[in-house]
Amino acid sequence: LVVGVDVGGTKIAAGVVDEQGQVYSRVKQPTYTSSPEVTLQCIAAAVNEAIAAAGIDRVHIGGVGLGIPGKVDPEQGIGVLSVNLGWRDVPVRNWLEDALGLPCAIENDVRAAILGESQYGAGRGVSNLVYLSLGTGIAASILIAGHLWRGAHGLAGEIGHTVFVADGTPCRCGARGCLEALAAGPALALRAQEEIRAGRASLLQRMTANHTDLTAEHIFAAAAQGDDLASQILSEAASHIAYAIYLLAMAYDPQMVVLGGGLAHEGSPLIEAVRSGVVRWMEQALIFREILDEQALCVTSLQRDAGILGAAALIIARHAVAGEAQR
Amino acid sequence: LVVGVDVGGTKIAAGVVDEQGQVYSRVKQPTYTSSPEVTLQCIAAAVNEAIAAAGIDRVHIGGVGLGIPGKVDPEQGIGVLSVNLGWRDVPVRNWLEDALGLPCAIENDVRAAILGESQYGAGRGVSNLVYLSLGTGIAASILIAGHLWRGAHGLAGEIGHTVFVADGTPCRCGARGCLEALAAGPALALRAQEEIRAGRASLLQRMTANHTDLTAEHIFAAAAQGDDLASQILSEAASHIAYAIYLLAMAYDPQMVVLGGGLAHEGSPLIEAVRSGVVRWMEQALIFREILDEQALCVTSLQRDAGILGAAALIIARHAVAGEAQR
Repeated sequence: LVVGVDVGGTKIAAGVVDEQGQVYSRVKQPTYTSSPEVTLQCIAAAVNEAIAAAGIDRVHIGGVGLGIPGKVDPEQGIGVLSVNLGWRDVPVRNWLEDALGLPCAIENDVRAAILGESQYGAGRGVSNLVYLSLGTGIAASILIAGHLWRGAHGLAGEIGHTVFVADGTPCRCGARGCLEALAAGPALALRAQEEIRAGRASLLQRMTANHTDLTAEHIFAAAAQGDDLASQILSEAASHIAYAIYLLAMAYDPQMVVLGGGLAHEGSPLIEAVRSGVVRWMEQALIFREILDEQALCVTSLQRDAGILGAAALIIARHAVAGEAQR
Repeated sequence: LVVGVDVGGTKIAAGVVDEQGQVYSRVKQPTYTSSPEVTLQCIAAAVNEAIAAAGIDRVHIGGVGLGIPGKVDPEQGIGVLSVNLGWRDVPVRNWLEDALGLPCAIENDVRAAILGESQYGAGRGVSNLVYLSLGTGIAASILIAGHLWRGAHGLAGEIGHTVFVADGTPCRCGARGCLEALAAGPALALRAQEEIRAGRASLLQRMTANHTDLTAEHIFAAAAQGDDLASQILSEAASHIAYAIYLLAMAYDPQMVVLGGGLAHEGSPLIEAVRSGVVRWMEQALIFREILDEQALCVTSLQRDAGILGAAALIIARHAVAGEAQR
């Protein structure tokens, strides 16, 4: 048994998991970020609470896996840079191993997620996999021949910060027209707010007291009711996401692409539009069709447990990691 | 000592090479393609001639490596599909091993080239490498943690057949607006012919008796003399190639990108323009800058021996190959 911990910017989710992916407990707490130590204390508390909630003796716990947003050094166990958590060079593993008396492993959350998919999820048993996380941010992780590929500088799969539209919408990374600035959750909300402010009629106006509260979920709901503006925003975002899937597949030639993250629910209007966009690429491009067919584009099957299971897979899968930074 | 053979659609080059990359002989013969057997006979003759020209006893030859255009099954030693050679499922390795009495290894030519770069060339000792071949076609090959990554279906790095311009110029792969249709050698010549036919003034008109004979080399020469049309064509192609380098680097996060192929000579106006385009991406995008700096974008240093040395590296380097097709 292991504990999987999904460390988010607003919430920490933890659970006890076995090798088959059965989840024995689930706890969720707010993430306090006044200092790295406070956040680490929240994490330790969540781990202890998850073990207690499972009613399992601590001696049966083999380790703790943690998925962390941002840049992580898994070898050294250090949280290198996390804007969401306010971390810079935090010795996460040492601190938690001292506090918990259990072996810990950390990884970037999107990289943990692909291990969860390949261990328990839509990509079970698939060793050449691209995982695309769609949420507040957009990022991909990559499994090659069963090994996590992080890149020579830990930046492999940074498709969210790849420029798709020259001189496009400014992105928080400093560039303009990055995929994330065009199609991530906050980008959808921002587009809606701009259009509403410019006087465009939409169901979205009635959905929130103040349209600055708009989220991607409001846009999904409005699109489901046939709202023009919401549908247009989703369709534009979906076409960028479909191109990202096309590019990643052409670059890596994986067996499967799995979509996950907060915006990826099977049947959501965004995901349906993404799927249509990818099918259009399949129709246009023979070589892409040899790489991916419709069955090879999946939405995560792990749902609410995706974060916990991905983190747990860090310990359970013990995936070897191909290639460390060498420059 | 090994023999490296570069099997091209018009010429076969072969040479005897040692572990340090010293080339003891170089022979070149036309490729006859009336039947696969005729082509295999040409290859065998070139190998024997290269051994004779080196004045080396056959017992010192450890094997023969062959770089072949098109789709290759290196495990089975089969030339699966080569449009240039007119091959479909040709048992290259068995035929040549019988004919030559030497162990043979075959690989796609662009994949052989990256092994040559990492063994002898600009990427010597670099284990995370992207190689981009610019010539009659455009394709990339990828080395990850010292292992050749071919993709789950042998299609990793097919950037030449990735659509960059929706509804753009038709490509021989059936799609429209692929990088190869925008920026490979024949695409440059075609653009020039179209503009000249449309009445555009250019030095190119005086360079060939009939402008249907135009090649990329004419365009390089005209651009070097300040010709507007040639410069414009190279600048447009270079901006697409620079975007391809940007995309491959963002996807793979390599330590280095090496440019090779018939169009990649250090100092050529195309390569200079590509370099400027990549530098513009570095200026715009922080994350790209963390992946590549100007020193990490190189032109092959192997020059005329690149094909022979890449093929030789198939035997010498004995690079393990990560991941075979598993679907």
